[in-house]
Amino acid sequence: MVNTLFLPELREMLAANNQAELVEFCNTLNPGRTAEFMEGLSNEEAWEVLQHADPSRRSEIFGYFAEERQLAMLQTHEPAQVAKLVEEIPEDDRVDLLQEMPEERVDEILPLLPIADRRNIQRLRAYEGETAGGLMTTEVAKLAQNLTAREALEELGRQAGELETIYYIYVVDEDNMLRGIVSTRQLVSSLARPTRTLGEMMETDVVVALATEDQESVAEKVERYNLLAIPVVDSGRRLLGIITHDDVIDVVREELTEDAHRIAAVAPLEDNYLQIGLFTLTWKRGLWLTILFFAALLTAFTLRSYESELESFAWLVWFIPLIISAGGNSGSQSATLVITAMTSGEVEFSDWHRVLTRESVVSLMLGAFLAFIGFSVAIFIAPSFRGALVIPLTLLSVIVCGCLCGATLPILFKRAGLDPALMSNPFVAGIVDILGIVIYINVARILIG
Amino acid sequence: MVNTLFLPELREMLAANNQAELVEFCNTLNPGRTAEFMEGLSNEEAWEVLQHADPSRRSEIFGYFAEERQLAMLQTHEPAQVAKLVEEIPEDDRVDLLQEMPEERVDEILPLLPIADRRNIQRLRAYEGETAGGLMTTEVAKLAQNLTAREALEELGRQAGELETIYYIYVVDEDNMLRGIVSTRQLVSSLARPTRTLGEMMETDVVVALATEDQESVAEKVERYNLLAIPVVDSGRRLLGIITHDDVIDVVREELTEDAHRIAAVAPLEDNYLQIGLFTLTWKRGLWLTILFFAALLTAFTLRSYESELESFAWLVWFIPLIISAGGNSGSQSATLVITAMTSGEVEFSDWHRVLTRESVVSLMLGAFLAFIGFSVAIFIAPSFRGALVIPLTLLSVIVCGCLCGATLPILFKRAGLDPALMSNPFVAGIVDILGIVIYINVARILIG
Repeated sequence: MVNTLFLPELREMLAANNQAELVEFCNTLNPGRTAEFMEGLSNEEAWEVLQHADPSRRSEIFGYFAEERQLAMLQTHEPAQVAKLVEEIPEDDRVDLLQEMPEERVDEILPLLPIADRRNIQRLRAYEGETAGGLMTTEVAKLAQNLTAREALEELGRQAGELETIYYIYVVDEDNMLRGIVSTRQLVSSLARPTRTLGEMMETDVVVALATEDQESVAEKVERYNLLAIPVVDSGRRLLGIITHDDVIDVVREELTEDAHRIAAVAPLEDNYLQIGLFTLTWKRGLWLTILFFAALLTAFTLRSYESELESFAWLVWFIPLIISAGGNSGSQSATLVITAMTSGEVEFSDWHRVLTRESVVSLMLGAFLAFIGFSVAIFIAPSFRGALVIPLTLLSVIVCGCLCGATLPILFKRAGLDPALMSNPFVAGIVDILGIVIYINVARILIG
Repeated sequence: MVNTLFLPELREMLAANNQAELVEFCNTLNPGRTAEFMEGLSNEEAWEVLQHADPSRRSEIFGYFAEERQLAMLQTHEPAQVAKLVEEIPEDDRVDLLQEMPEERVDEILPLLPIADRRNIQRLRAYEGETAGGLMTTEVAKLAQNLTAREALEELGRQAGELETIYYIYVVDEDNMLRGIVSTRQLVSSLARPTRTLGEMMETDVVVALATEDQESVAEKVERYNLLAIPVVDSGRRLLGIITHDDVIDVVREELTEDAHRIAAVAPLEDNYLQIGLFTLTWKRGLWLTILFFAALLTAFTLRSYESELESFAWLVWFIPLIISAGGNSGSQSATLVITAMTSGEVEFSDWHRVLTRESVVSLMLGAFLAFIGFSVAIFIAPSFRGALVIPLTLLSVIVCGCLCGATLPILFKRAGLDPALMSNPFVAGIVDILGIVIYINVARILIG
């Protein structure tokens, strides 16, 4: 819910042009909360209020606005004013915002920035969005090996205002090659021996990310080693920048949400569900929905080919949706479990035989149980005992097939270098549907045909 | 894949009892990598190698082992040896491990720990696992307001070895009430004015978590404010402990994976997919599978009640799976999109009318398109033109119903205080199945009945 606590006061302050109070509002609470209290204002009102903050705080508060507000503000005000704000925005966020804006607008703003910022933006823009290079900022603490702990702390103190984080110091040589890492914790602990150099303290075995590395791989490293930040290097191990933990949390959430969408046969939305254009949303859903529709059309033709059996044993028809959904639901479960286990790194291709064994056992137990229930119902509906047997036998087969399908197809897809989540549940269900009908009719033929 | 690079050497060193080399192996690389190279060893071998690390490093390397290995090691060795290790393990991880172990074993180890550790474990065990209290560690930097920047840094240097993180300092008064927060970045920047006190520098508007707060809510705060760590307080704002970003990343991954499981009608697994017991896995899947099975049984009775129509128009039967899957897949998409949007905070209950509008428009577009394709096929199969019309009209209605159902049920569940992901896709599909059959037969009755 939008926080409306301060809205009346804020609007009064704006109407009365009460500078002093607006300045106090901007500078008192932490920036995140300040932005939260401004949520209910219009973009225009919010921009006005924002001008009353100290320059450094301004970009901090701005950073907490929703993306649509940020883009709106950057696109509708005087380029000169906007450029001043853009200078202060952290590098990694800045390049993401500029990439969402129309070229003409970016061309209006870029020339108004200092040349260092302009060059930095060009450099970062060159990287693909979902790679380490696309996520990083270059505002990283780089110091030389020969500095003592005390000198390093003092230097950090001087640079602290411009750096993304001062908690990891990267030790580089004259060629900007990454030699080691020292944490500020180590620096602070060494205050008792202030003449120890960075070179003596540093950890040389540094976990790094290549600039071209995929963001999922970067997130996995940060998670595995519980890092606060990960340095980004080029192929020559020259230090290019840094990615911090907060950006990695966002990547983890993004990747897992996309997985969930793909499993449901939705191509990943690039925007919020409520923000995305209706035609785009329709397309992203319609693409796979249509493919699945064609797959399902095959079931119609399959059933048609069994026309005579269905006429002879009309009661078989009543159980079609039951059998299909039993197979589909089981297959869905297997696919989802395997897909999420692969995403979290719990299952790899080499585990395929363990997965198959588990799925075989579990599907037999599940299938036997549901077959029993199905049989108890079929007994009262089917015209004969043998007829009733068709149901449990089919259910057992369909559930086992569904589980084995659902579990192995994602693994095969991953092996083939494709995204296992793409092996979406409905696809598995589609295959299992047709298989289910074929099994069903043939079991019926054998038993009562 | 398990890293086997050093395995031969490690086994040689163990066989030859080469102390010096084993010590070097343990202390050279960073702990995470060291643990990685030990993955292929048996638990016994790994324990042996581990004894050669310095005490502080030992617990760090141990921290990177897989949980099954950690538990196995803690349960199979001399209690005295194990207690020495347990002393060094970070508090928050320690209490989680002890909670996974049988009571008798914990009772063997606890008395061998120093009384401070024993008390600490008892205190942390009292909290529910998935709350702030259950995630936190008490190893937090607490200093008084009157300390100067220089004094604070020196004190930090002394305590650094025992603290989870030294990057946020929490300013508390004599009653241990949280007054403010100072970041080490601020301290380092203030080195030029070393007589400034913590009280003067601190931010008083601190984002906190209550000890009883749900872990999802804690994760949301840490993400929103890009925090490195969040302090945990009791109802009197007394500082109890701290939760760091790396634990939050784990919570985010855990919560989103559970969501994906619930959406597929699997009760959240408490263990890894490959580790969980087969009966447990069957139960967690079977519970909802059975409920859905009963729901699907209703489709059998529904079709039976339309026995005469199905006999008169046998061709209608061929399209049953197509119609059911079209409704089910669309409903799945809607449900997944809305559920993930709610989890990420993009959609709240107050957005229900926006969601409904979007779904109405999108479902009409998707339905119209698929209805057209369905009609083009039905034309060749149905015995009459009016008959062929049954298909597109049904498809359109079923897809629209499916989408609206799939989108609104999670919102209603959330409003009712239940987990929206519980409104799993198959449930939506089940409802839509029955509705689909009813719509289908009735449209057929009206057009050709």
